[in-house]
Amino acid sequence: MSDLPKSILITEEGPREGFQVEQEPIATARKVELIDALSQTGLKRIQVVSFVDPKRVPGMADAEQVVAGIRVKPGVEYTGLWLNQKGLERARATGKLTLEGKISLYPSEKFLMRNNNRTLEQQTEYVHRVLDSYQEHGIPVERGSISNAFGCNFQGDIPLAKVVAMVGEIYDIAARHGLHIRELSLADTMAWATPLQVKRTVGAIREQYPDIRINLHLHDTRGMGIANAYAGLEMGVDMFDSSVAGLGGCPFAGHKGASGNVCTEDLVFMCEEIGVRTGVDLDVLIEAARLAENIVGHPLPGSVMKGGSLAKLRQSAR
Amino acid sequence: MSDLPKSILITEEGPREGFQVEQEPIATARKVELIDALSQTGLKRIQVVSFVDPKRVPGMADAEQVVAGIRVKPGVEYTGLWLNQKGLERARATGKLTLEGKISLYPSEKFLMRNNNRTLEQQTEYVHRVLDSYQEHGIPVERGSISNAFGCNFQGDIPLAKVVAMVGEIYDIAARHGLHIRELSLADTMAWATPLQVKRTVGAIREQYPDIRINLHLHDTRGMGIANAYAGLEMGVDMFDSSVAGLGGCPFAGHKGASGNVCTEDLVFMCEEIGVRTGVDLDVLIEAARLAENIVGHPLPGSVMKGGSLAKLRQSAR
Repeated sequence: MSDLPKSILITEEGPREGFQVEQEPIATARKVELIDALSQTGLKRIQVVSFVDPKRVPGMADAEQVVAGIRVKPGVEYTGLWLNQKGLERARATGKLTLEGKISLYPSEKFLMRNNNRTLEQQTEYVHRVLDSYQEHGIPVERGSISNAFGCNFQGDIPLAKVVAMVGEIYDIAARHGLHIRELSLADTMAWATPLQVKRTVGAIREQYPDIRINLHLHDTRGMGIANAYAGLEMGVDMFDSSVAGLGGCPFAGHKGASGNVCTEDLVFMCEEIGVRTGVDLDVLIEAARLAENIVGHPLPGSVMKGGSLAKLRQSAR
Repeated sequence: MSDLPKSILITEEGPREGFQVEQEPIATARKVELIDALSQTGLKRIQVVSFVDPKRVPGMADAEQVVAGIRVKPGVEYTGLWLNQKGLERARATGKLTLEGKISLYPSEKFLMRNNNRTLEQQTEYVHRVLDSYQEHGIPVERGSISNAFGCNFQGDIPLAKVVAMVGEIYDIAARHGLHIRELSLADTMAWATPLQVKRTVGAIREQYPDIRINLHLHDTRGMGIANAYAGLEMGVDMFDSSVAGLGGCPFAGHKGASGNVCTEDLVFMCEEIGVRTGVDLDVLIEAARLAENIVGHPLPGSVMKGGSLAKLRQSAR
C-alpha cells in the first residue's frame, strides 16, 4: 500500500520555534526546564535556540544562557539555528552544540529579503562564504535546505520545477567546495503545502536525486501538518522537524495566524499507531507538552496532549 | 498516484455536533443565524439538530424551534439526528427536514450501552422495529452506519474483520425488509483512526462490497482528522461529515479532550487545493466559522479560519 519507513528521526524544534515568538518574556530557567524534559522522552535531536539579532527576536537574547543551562543527555544531539556568520560564531562559542552546516536556498526572494535581508544573488554569495567558514572550522556540511518550497505568502505558488532546479543548485554549490549533499530539508514555512503536493514534490526530487534523504519541516497554519507528514511517510520520508505541543511560528511569515511546526506528540502518535518507530515514549512526551503549555501560559494547539494516548484506554478495555 | 474523486459531498454537522456539547446555553436565534449563514456557503447538506432527551442533552431541547426558524435555501437539504422512535416522530413533526433512515450498528457494545442504552441484541431488534416504522411512513433507507468503526475508548481496538462482517449484517437486515443499501457511513467516534487504518478499512470493505459508497465521519480528538480524510480521498471516498470551525464533540465519549468532527473549512481548503471540488466558497465559509466562534464565545479548533485561505495571498503576490 505504501513505502512507509520502519522508523523516523525527529528533530524537535519546539524550544527554538516556540520561545522565539512568545509575546511575554520567558525565564531562561523555564526554557532549560522544557529542554531537559524533552531530553527524557527518547527524542534524539533537539534544536534548542537560534542565534539571531536580539533586537529582531528578543525571545532568543538569552540563547547562550539557555545552552549553558541544559543538562546534556548522552545520545541526544542539541543544535542551534543561525542565519549569518555572527550567529555561527555564537553557536561555536557555546562548545555544547552539535554543529552542522547546511546550504540554504530560497525560491522566494521576497521572503529571503524579509527573513535574512538578502537578495537571491547575495544569498548564493553568502552560502559560498559560509561554506568556506564551515570548512575552516571543520564543521560538516551534508544538508541542503529549501525554505518556502511549497508556496510563499509574498511570492505565491512556487513551481515544482523551480524547487527541483534548486536541488541541482545546491549540489553544484556543494561540488565547488568538494562537498557531497546527503540530506535535503524541504520547509513549508508558510503552510501552503497539501498532502498531494508533498507527494509530487518528494516524487519529482527523488526521480532526479534518488539517493538524497529528505527531511520535512511542516508548519501547521492551515491544519495540514499531520496530513502532509503522512503523505511524506507514504513517500518514504524518514526525517521530520516537529514542535512539542505545536509550539511556535515564524516571526516573519507576515500574518498573525502563522502557527508552529507540526506537533511532535501528534506525529509520534500517528507514527507509532501505524508501526513507524520514533524511539519516543508518547506518554512522557505528552507530559513535556503539558509543561510547555504551563511555561508559555496559554493554550497550545497540540491535540494528543488533550485527547491522550491510546495505551491506557487499551489497557482498561481488556 | 491515487484515486482522488473529482468532487465530494459534505454533510455539515457543526450545528448539531456543536450546540449539543456547549456548556453555556446558546440562544435559539443564534443557532438559526449560524445555520442560515452555512446555507449561503455552497454546502448542500446541513445536519441542524438532534432530537434526543433534553435531560441528557440540554443544548438540543430547542430542536423544534431551531428547525422552525431556519430560512430554507433551495438546493440545500436540512437533516436531523434521532436515536429512537420518539426522536423520529419529533423530526417528522417539523415537516421541514429531509428524512432519511439508516441502519445503525455498533461494534462496541460498551459504547452502545452508554450512548443508546441498548445491548447489541436490543440494537438489532430496534433496527428492525425502526425499519418497519420508516417503511410505514415512506422514509427512504439507503444507508448503513457503523459507529466506533476504528476503535472505542471502552471496547478498545475494533478488529477489521468485525467491521467487514458488520457490513454484511447491515445488508442482511436490509434484505429482510426488501431494502438495498447504497451508502455506508463509518464513524471514528472517539478518534482512534489513523490514515493507514482508514485505507485498510475502506479497502477491505470495498473488496467485498465494491459498489457501496462510503461516507467518513471523523473526529479530530487526536489531530488525525484531516490526515484521515486525505487517506479516505486517496481511496476514492467522496462523502464526508464535517463541522464548521471544528465545532462539537460527543457528549458520551467519556473524556474531556473529545473534540468535534474534522473541520469543514480545513477539509474544503485541502480538497480545493488538490483539485477535488466541494461546491463551497471557502472565504464565505471562513466567515461562517468566525461567526460560530462568536456564537459559542470561546476559541474553536479550526485552522484555516485563523491561517486564512490562499486566494488573496495569490492575488497580492502577482
